[in-house]
Amino acid sequence: MSGNTFGRLFCVTSFGESHGPAIGCVVDGCPPGLALSEADLQPDLDRRRPGTSRYVTQRKEADLVRILSGVYQGHTTGTPIALLIENTDQRSYDYDKIRQTFRPNHADYAYVQKYGVRDPRGGGRSSARETAVRVAAAGIAKKWLRERFGLRIRGYVAQIGPVELRLEDWEAVELNPFFCAEPARVPELEALIDALRAQGDSVGARINVEASGMVPGWGEPVFDRLDADLAHALMGINAAKGVEIGDGMRVAGMRGTEHRDEMRPQGFLSNHSGGVSGGISTGQDLLCSIAIKPTSSITTPGRSIDDTGAAVDMRTTGRHDPCVGIRAVPIAEAMVALVLMDHALRHRAQNADVVPPTPRIPPLAP
Amino acid sequence: MSGNTFGRLFCVTSFGESHGPAIGCVVDGCPPGLALSEADLQPDLDRRRPGTSRYVTQRKEADLVRILSGVYQGHTTGTPIALLIENTDQRSYDYDKIRQTFRPNHADYAYVQKYGVRDPRGGGRSSARETAVRVAAAGIAKKWLRERFGLRIRGYVAQIGPVELRLEDWEAVELNPFFCAEPARVPELEALIDALRAQGDSVGARINVEASGMVPGWGEPVFDRLDADLAHALMGINAAKGVEIGDGMRVAGMRGTEHRDEMRPQGFLSNHSGGVSGGISTGQDLLCSIAIKPTSSITTPGRSIDDTGAAVDMRTTGRHDPCVGIRAVPIAEAMVALVLMDHALRHRAQNADVVPPTPRIPPLAP
Amino acid sequence: MSGNTFGRLFCVTSFGESHGPAIGCVVDGCPPGLALSEADLQPDLDRRRPGTSRYVTQRKEADLVRILSGVYQGHTTGTPIALLIENTDQRSYDYDKIRQTFRPNHADYAYVQKYGVRDPRGGGRSSARETAVRVAAAGIAKKWLRERFGLRIRGYVAQIGPVELRLEDWEAVELNPFFCAEPARVPELEALIDALRAQGDSVGARINVEASGMVPGWGEPVFDRLDADLAHALMGINAAKGVEIGDGMRVAGMRGTEHRDEMRPQGFLSNHSGGVSGGISTGQDLLCSIAIKPTSSITTPGRSIDDTGAAVDMRTTGRHDPCVGIRAVPIAEAMVALVLMDHALRHRAQNADVVPPTPRIPPLAP
Amino acid sequence: MSGNTFGRLFCVTSFGESHGPAIGCVVDGCPPGLALSEADLQPDLDRRRPGTSRYVTQRKEADLVRILSGVYQGHTTGTPIALLIENTDQRSYDYDKIRQTFRPNHADYAYVQKYGVRDPRGGGRSSARETAVRVAAAGIAKKWLRERFGLRIRGYVAQIGPVELRLEDWEAVELNPFFCAEPARVPELEALIDALRAQGDSVGARINVEASGMVPGWGEPVFDRLDADLAHALMGINAAKGVEIGDGMRVAGMRGTEHRDEMRPQGFLSNHSGGVSGGISTGQDLLCSIAIKPTSSITTPGRSIDDTGAAVDMRTTGRHDPCVGIRAVPIAEAMVALVLMDHALRHRAQNADVVPPTPRIPPLAP
Repeated sequence: MSGNTFGRLFCVTSFGESHGPAIGCVVDGCPPGLALSEADLQPDLDRRRPGTSRYVTQRKEADLVRILSGVYQGHTTGTPIALLIENTDQRSYDYDKIRQTFRPNHADYAYVQKYGVRDPRGGGRSSARETAVRVAAAGIAKKWLRERFGLRIRGYVAQIGPVELRLEDWEAVELNPFFCAEPARVPELEALIDALRAQGDSVGARINVEASGMVPGWGEPVFDRLDADLAHALMGINAAKGVEIGDGMRVAGMRGTEHRDEMRPQGFLSNHSGGVSGGISTGQDLLCSIAIKPTSSITTPGRSIDDTGAAVDMRTTGRHDPCVGIRAVPIAEAMVALVLMDHALRHRAQNADVVPPTPRIPPLAP
Repeated sequence: MSGNTFGRLFCVTSFGESHGPAIGCVVDGCPPGLALSEADLQPDLDRRRPGTSRYVTQRKEADLVRILSGVYQGHTTGTPIALLIENTDQRSYDYDKIRQTFRPNHADYAYVQKYGVRDPRGGGRSSARETAVRVAAAGIAKKWLRERFGLRIRGYVAQIGPVELRLEDWEAVELNPFFCAEPARVPELEALIDALRAQGDSVGARINVEASGMVPGWGEPVFDRLDADLAHALMGINAAKGVEIGDGMRVAGMRGTEHRDEMRPQGFLSNHSGGVSGGISTGQDLLCSIAIKPTSSITTPGRSIDDTGAAVDMRTTGRHDPCVGIRAVPIAEAMVALVLMDHALRHRAQNADVVPPTPRIPPLAP
Repeated sequence: MSGNTFGRLFCVTSFGESHGPAIGCVVDGCPPGLALSEADLQPDLDRRRPGTSRYVTQRKEADLVRILSGVYQGHTTGTPIALLIENTDQRSYDYDKIRQTFRPNHADYAYVQKYGVRDPRGGGRSSARETAVRVAAAGIAKKWLRERFGLRIRGYVAQIGPVELRLEDWEAVELNPFFCAEPARVPELEALIDALRAQGDSVGARINVEASGMVPGWGEPVFDRLDADLAHALMGINAAKGVEIGDGMRVAGMRGTEHRDEMRPQGFLSNHSGGVSGGISTGQDLLCSIAIKPTSSITTPGRSIDDTGAAVDMRTTGRHDPCVGIRAVPIAEAMVALVLMDHALRHRAQNADVVPPTPRIPPLAP
Repeated sequence: MSGNTFGRLFCVTSFGESHGPAIGCVVDGCPPGLALSEADLQPDLDRRRPGTSRYVTQRKEADLVRILSGVYQGHTTGTPIALLIENTDQRSYDYDKIRQTFRPNHADYAYVQKYGVRDPRGGGRSSARETAVRVAAAGIAKKWLRERFGLRIRGYVAQIGPVELRLEDWEAVELNPFFCAEPARVPELEALIDALRAQGDSVGARINVEASGMVPGWGEPVFDRLDADLAHALMGINAAKGVEIGDGMRVAGMRGTEHRDEMRPQGFLSNHSGGVSGGISTGQDLLCSIAIKPTSSITTPGRSIDDTGAAVDMRTTGRHDPCVGIRAVPIAEAMVALVLMDHALRHRAQNADVVPPTPRIPPLAP
């Protein structure tokens, strides 16, 4: 219970360091009978994988996932599904020089204050590499949610540094290295990233994730609201500093007459709430947004201290993304999938016998 | 496990409906030997209490808390502390007329989709009244954190609708009904709330909470990051739609050279991260911000449906706040306190024997 | 998480001391729509209640339970059900004299080693009084299991000290103060208890609990086996020192050809396993047995130490049972009910869509 | 949360099937700074390993454990420790013939009722092979408990079928294939097992486990009593049907004057309670006992049904132990170690600041 297990009923227990022999996880609680093979999980791993374009980190990892248990003759059996991804491109020598220092704004200092020790190889457990196992595990959840409920989860980059991006074309998202849904802006992003790399700097990003085909009634009224659990999941992504549901932080400046989502038998008349009301899904599309800070791994030297507490100036080298937020799209989708899967099971545990007396209304009135 | 228990080691299990006989909670896991009486818990309850000024709901509740167990001769014994708050001003007749309809943008519709039934008296479990027990429980956490570590948690209103408010004077916060730290702006707020009430409308708010005297090393690296658990806690407040740590959503537009908090033996040189790095506290002040949506309980009629799914127009009556966000200040402080208390215990469970080799640096260099 | 919550999905959080103002619990996770009132819970509380005959403790407690939340218009709503039982006959003066000493073989010494303090009034939290709330909470589970599945849980006393008792007549169990299913032996038991009281001594007991109408498929294969969770539940009863499922400890001396339960389409041919195989229910009757030690609260003086560690001789006075095991029958039934309820919900969370390809066979072939 | 994670703070998440590619686990919550390598874990794995004598199953597994994460430069880092054991001798053809039938008294039937499917290869998840990972994980706990507190856990076989065995010589336990502490009886056991194998039958066993060097104060007063959690752990071992603490089931027939453990400043005067009082450790030796049923995998044909529900007679072939209980000794030790480790951490989470006012007395007076 050192926080490496996610979920109450669909439980993902993650392990592994960036430069150890392997990373992986155990997925416990998957319903039996789901057709599943590595081929179902690999596509999202490939979307998150480093080294796929010159705009993300140049570490080369095949990120091939193996299923070690819980699947028999191509279907889940209901027993734990262990997933293993071997680390192949570890290059721990890259990190040797920073072994005695704390990289500014990295977790190094906090780890030593907590544990007294740390694994300096590639940031060890604090590396974004760990998120690969979340993406793999969530592939199971995404598949089950899609097959069982027709539910679909997808994300895009809504902002990279100064560049704000609209949702114009879902199809375009997979066709450029920025998960950008406004394809005409891609050259602008290419120029931005190239400039940042030349300047030894980095930039933040905002990611939007949507789930359509939502089932009403998922979530819990008080602490484990659907939106609260989403906030937990999404703020648990490396470098996330803000989470929004629906209109998000903007609601502080809004009026009730403006924000409220009115209802008609034909459907909801707006979706300011982002699909959650009182902590419970309404059947509207789920709308989430997160902000990812600019990576602190930049080549511009920074002021820091070393293991003895003495001042040092240091420059982070190694293979880093000028914008770590870009690859966060499949990770954010994954965390949303894990939350929805968990709440789908939680809901039916308590409420499997419920037949709502009121008909469900469509997500949005035509 | 329907989400009414908060925390892993310092566990608060909440119960009660707005218009039932009582609300309350059980606090399990409190260290023994803490001096505790109702007098320690009442002040924050009074800060949250309705009916204290004309700017908040006129429901009159004494909100007197009773300790039913876990305290002997004025000290905690280590056994569960049950807290009970009786409901006195229930006026359920206020709600009779809306029994067959779903108030627009309330949890009513979602509850019926989930449970098939709901308790319509005052919103039942979805009422903000439930948060009183969180405030009461957190009084225990606040006291222990203060006595054990010198840790202090406090909040203020940073925005009410169009009015943004600075942190100018912590002392002022308790001297006006708006938890406003910029006292010269209070008349502006009074006028705003009066106008909203006259217009039958409501407005959102932003709340900032800070914790000073933080201990480095609290939190967990992966899923249960300190910031992730804060996001869970704060998004779990009724009507919250956004949560930020440190620079929050603004990081999407920032550069690494601008955002990173450099370190020197004399202390950190900035606090953009809001006191958390890699999911673990750094010893810097914890900085959190939440946005509370404008209440949907307004007197301007809205389009909705009834229990049969037919269209109705309805006007929410009853005693409501034009800005529910105001009273969220003690609630947000409470949720931060519960998270910190829980992580203080989690940290020492695993790491009680750790002596960090590196000296701790001050929160901010002078 | 100091162990005062039982269950993963049907969660009972217990609070209260023997001589504090009240005991009670919060039941979270109950399915909505169950008809429920205090009248459903009181009968089992009355079966467990002290002072009902001269063979059990003479403490007079009405043990009237109040439902404080989670029920609206006579049905559960799916929100937490808080149950409150006020303590009325507290007589804390009985215990004043033992405040500075540790009663031999009581939890007093262990509590002080753990917490540094203890509530000496009536044993505080270690009193068997706490079990009243388990019985109350389990009343909800029993009702739901009976209505939803036709499942029935009942127990009887199988041994009191030297007297071993057979299951001869279920009807008789409720007609004598010993929960004895062999009514002809009741006078023997009366004489035994009277003699023990005269001698200032006590005696142990063995309780059997059976559940019929079991559903196959409940339980989990590895750690949270149905029998393992039953063992946890039953060993968690005050003074329990042994737990058996099916043939229990006797299996150590048995042969495979003798113990195995063979199967035929007409049903199982025996039930040595007690209804659980591989940690999962088979649909056969669940058979559990526990041993309750003789109470250490006896009037024969014993050697002990006081708060300073010095030797004292002490005699426990107060109102105690010569055989605490007798009243353990409804408690043991309660714990079995809580486990089955929890696993019913756990099972359907994961496996709600499962249609077993093989027909279910009857519990026992005719 | 399908029950494959054990522990609240020291959490072991198990995965893997008997005849899949590998079994393993993730250990989360281990304190940092513990010297650890595979060599610390292998000895207990070797004690549990099949194929080591002709008296246990002839399956040949090297059971070599690999540490995949959580250890850096020979010490734990506080992050999850993944352990992997590859399956090498799988011979799934042994099981092909029983794919369409339910072996009598095995979990096969229960699995199909629960999941609709099962992995028939070697019993899949229900195989005792899974317990290897418990032994590996517990090696970490044993080492930490020994180094941190001087605590020692060891077990022996107290009964094999009709042969009851005394604890005569702890040293002898490791010198014979039966974990027998009464070495003169070993030839008798050899003859018994040889005869059973010839007869195609099996026999049960009783295992005793003791922990010395116990720390007082571990455990929780109500549901998660130390003895209740031990019962959960021990009844969670494959084929366990009974669990006893201290005098166990015999207490039903005992008197209070006989059973109670009196105290003197020089120490406790007896240990009938087995080291636990009120659910909390007293500092006395922990005494546990379990009964393991005779394996149902015997070559004497039995009556059963097939996948369609039709009657079949079947004879279990393959490589099986005539007494599976023998190899349960290291498994039972492992489960005790996991419980104690977990409660050590739980205790200090809540009570790290407690200084008991009363001096601790020795486990037993001289």
